[in-house]
Amino acid sequence: MSTESRILCPALQQRVTTAEAAAAMIPAGANVGMSGFTGAGYPKAVPGALAERIKAHNAAGGKPFRINVLTGASTAPELDGKLAEVDGIEMRLPFQSDPICRERINNGTMNYADYHLSEVAQYAWSGFFGKMDIAIIEVVGIREDGSLIPSSSLGNNKTWIEQADKIILEVNHKQNARMEGMHDVYYGAALPPNRKPIMLTEPGQRIGELYLRCPIEKVVAVVETNAADRNTPFKKPDDASRKIAEHILEFFDREIKLGRLPKGLLPLQSGVGNIPNAVLEALDSGPYKNLTAYTEVIQDGMLKMLKSGTLAMASATAFSLSPEGIEEFDKDIEFYRQKILLRSQDISNHPEVARRLGVIATNGMIEADIYGNVNSTHVMGTRMMNGIGGSGDFARNGYLSIFMSPSTAKDGKISSIVPMVSHVDHTEHDVKIIVTEQGLADLRGLAPRQRALAIINNCAHPDFKEQLLDYFERACASGRGMHTPHLLNEALSWHERFEQIGTMKPNA
Amino acid sequence: MSTESRILCPALQQRVTTAEAAAAMIPAGANVGMSGFTGAGYPKAVPGALAERIKAHNAAGGKPFRINVLTGASTAPELDGKLAEVDGIEMRLPFQSDPICRERINNGTMNYADYHLSEVAQYAWSGFFGKMDIAIIEVVGIREDGSLIPSSSLGNNKTWIEQADKIILEVNHKQNARMEGMHDVYYGAALPPNRKPIMLTEPGQRIGELYLRCPIEKVVAVVETNAADRNTPFKKPDDASRKIAEHILEFFDREIKLGRLPKGLLPLQSGVGNIPNAVLEALDSGPYKNLTAYTEVIQDGMLKMLKSGTLAMASATAFSLSPEGIEEFDKDIEFYRQKILLRSQDISNHPEVARRLGVIATNGMIEADIYGNVNSTHVMGTRMMNGIGGSGDFARNGYLSIFMSPSTAKDGKISSIVPMVSHVDHTEHDVKIIVTEQGLADLRGLAPRQRALAIINNCAHPDFKEQLLDYFERACASGRGMHTPHLLNEALSWHERFEQIGTMKPNA
Repeated sequence: MSTESRILCPALQQRVTTAEAAAAMIPAGANVGMSGFTGAGYPKAVPGALAERIKAHNAAGGKPFRINVLTGASTAPELDGKLAEVDGIEMRLPFQSDPICRERINNGTMNYADYHLSEVAQYAWSGFFGKMDIAIIEVVGIREDGSLIPSSSLGNNKTWIEQADKIILEVNHKQNARMEGMHDVYYGAALPPNRKPIMLTEPGQRIGELYLRCPIEKVVAVVETNAADRNTPFKKPDDASRKIAEHILEFFDREIKLGRLPKGLLPLQSGVGNIPNAVLEALDSGPYKNLTAYTEVIQDGMLKMLKSGTLAMASATAFSLSPEGIEEFDKDIEFYRQKILLRSQDISNHPEVARRLGVIATNGMIEADIYGNVNSTHVMGTRMMNGIGGSGDFARNGYLSIFMSPSTAKDGKISSIVPMVSHVDHTEHDVKIIVTEQGLADLRGLAPRQRALAIINNCAHPDFKEQLLDYFERACASGRGMHTPHLLNEALSWHERFEQIGTMKPNA
Repeated sequence: MSTESRILCPALQQRVTTAEAAAAMIPAGANVGMSGFTGAGYPKAVPGALAERIKAHNAAGGKPFRINVLTGASTAPELDGKLAEVDGIEMRLPFQSDPICRERINNGTMNYADYHLSEVAQYAWSGFFGKMDIAIIEVVGIREDGSLIPSSSLGNNKTWIEQADKIILEVNHKQNARMEGMHDVYYGAALPPNRKPIMLTEPGQRIGELYLRCPIEKVVAVVETNAADRNTPFKKPDDASRKIAEHILEFFDREIKLGRLPKGLLPLQSGVGNIPNAVLEALDSGPYKNLTAYTEVIQDGMLKMLKSGTLAMASATAFSLSPEGIEEFDKDIEFYRQKILLRSQDISNHPEVARRLGVIATNGMIEADIYGNVNSTHVMGTRMMNGIGGSGDFARNGYLSIFMSPSTAKDGKISSIVPMVSHVDHTEHDVKIIVTEQGLADLRGLAPRQRALAIINNCAHPDFKEQLLDYFERACASGRGMHTPHLLNEALSWHERFEQIGTMKPNA
């Protein structure tokens, strides 16, 4: 498909229109399913046009005009930012990372429901979110038969297209048309009692189709755009990230020697961010060859690993590349097309597949407590950071679940190891390994008090270690239950102290 | 197989010995995998003989003699009780419900690791628990080729037999020999990267073998016993349980009308206890026919439902019957053999299968908080009750996850709806429905503050409703994050108050 003629379906050529005209088709209160996952493949024009419309509406003093925005995962300022700015979002799900959204969520002017990314499609199919009114989907092109060449993320696009009454397509000329052929859209999903096994046994296996099916009659508008994805600049790993990566590599070595991991490891799942990127970089400079990835997102690190041969192939649902990453990808797309598969997020994150493949799940966290519960979402128990994303999908179903964080935050004023986490996203039953730059705690087979000592001694920052041990010892001596000793009136006092005086340290 | 000759394998006939002789083969510090799940199919004689040995050892003043006890789930006084009584257990996993064990766990003299029941086999195969020294497995009989007719639970028996260096068999003449043919032992499991799809698409489908394979050379002792399972008496549902069941039946009706549940529902998973039994009883007196169950445990209620035709078949890993239930089962075992399949617990609770079948997971809880986090295990945050069991396996993978509890406990002094749960076993991301006798809160698609109002208004006891609303309103007004409003210095104060003055009520 050439870049000039990206809309080959005659019927859909007739429906090309402006973003403004398309936005005018979206009524207040609509459930709108949008493409987009980690700042890739989201619609670039219609959400902004809708925001303009809402702004004008609000200026004219009408009743609030808001929609419910369902996506794959996070998008970008052009979508979440613009709609949040004009107070145009009633309910946002299943994930976001936008600063303006975050502010609204945390000041109570936007509702946000934070879901496991694998479950969203199932929720929608089951009717648990109500009727889906409109889908707005970015694609790379439209084929003669109306089928769609997906863009840089697949996310929930298949589900939104199937579920929505009406579809608006954005054909983005900026996306590399040669991505055609990198997607694997699985059409075997069904609702129970009609579900069948997903016959995926290797990360690189194709089980679906190259294109998104699209009922032409539902398409009410086609908008042409020419805009890049969010493409966050890549940061070199800092010292803490490199140390965390070292601990993990040592751990892998040990596990291989003990026969508890194969030499080729197991399919890697890697969260988004600097620490996961550091782990990828460390793996790439290690002895590994022909690893595989079964993950959500392809970051720069994975491109490098594919090039070096450390990684033989990567399965994901989206890209999240830096501008240099995009350049590299575009330059050598024929190579990468052989090595990368993008799947719908209900498959990329599916518990059935993650369990079967035995992924090694490595994800960042906000804090862990001494008993191994992990908080991935809430700052000081009340404020949403981004969301759980796929961390639960992979951690609870993977062969290993590894959670990583520097041992402190805010210039050392916050300890990421605390007596009790202020919010739980991953329970003690699901967390196998915790790592900070201080060291690694292997929690497998340990009872809670044993875990506490492992975590405090291996992972806590020296500035907080004594304070944690003191809490633990006093909890043990308190005469309360000794299974998970706690002082309930102190358990959250570290967070409270930070809120009051800006540090978790006791004698500040 | 007649009841007279239950050991048909000549080589194993040679290894028949006493419980005492078998117990003498277990060294201190051993990892011992025992059969047993919800008080069914556990070894009746060897654990007690070992306890006697430990008692004598301790009386002689030796170093502490303890073993690590791994089972399917809970056992009975003859196993957990006797070994705990003599301080013979170093580490217990993955589930227990024994009063003496519980006391030791909570006074710090026994370690306990509380695991999802589906994950235990995988942990063991992966070597995460270390080497398995000895398996002690109750069976109904031994066939000529050495293969084993399983007893009233399958649990982790297949795994313990495979993993252990040595095997002790208990042949229990009290178990009905005509259970032969009710089991389905799946031998297709493997470790990644060699795992294949589990081709189970209906609760009643057979995918395995009738018997447990057993390497004869590993069997070091065969002990004959004649003792009944724990068989807890069945209690008629109380008023609160009946009301909870009514709310759930109304909910099912509504969901069917809305097209969000098929008329024949979806495979039922039912936790153990009075409330789940009340739900089964209510279903049995409703209009339902030919339902299916994909669950852990067959309780009395399910036998009745099979008889009445409400249930067409039930898949589980164990029985948990009352003495009358056993009588009924024995009387009509030919009928039940056509309707019941017992599987290994890694299959009965497998996330892949639970997700595919779309189970309706109904489980009890200790408490829920206003945002929908559920505590299934810890009393006042520190004391272990029983364990998470299979509730997580089913709740997080099921089509619906329903958590049930009376709205109060301890004569109304404890509210089971609290500002913040004192321990999290099921996160806000996984809890779809909460029910008390007061009513049902449907949390699907709701943001946290919306959930809070639904839970407080529908589920809280009138004695605590105002107090909960007051907490919520003050949390919202506190200026902290409005995504999940909390007052950190008050969030656990209800539990602390109960510990201090014996009630959660403020003006006591």
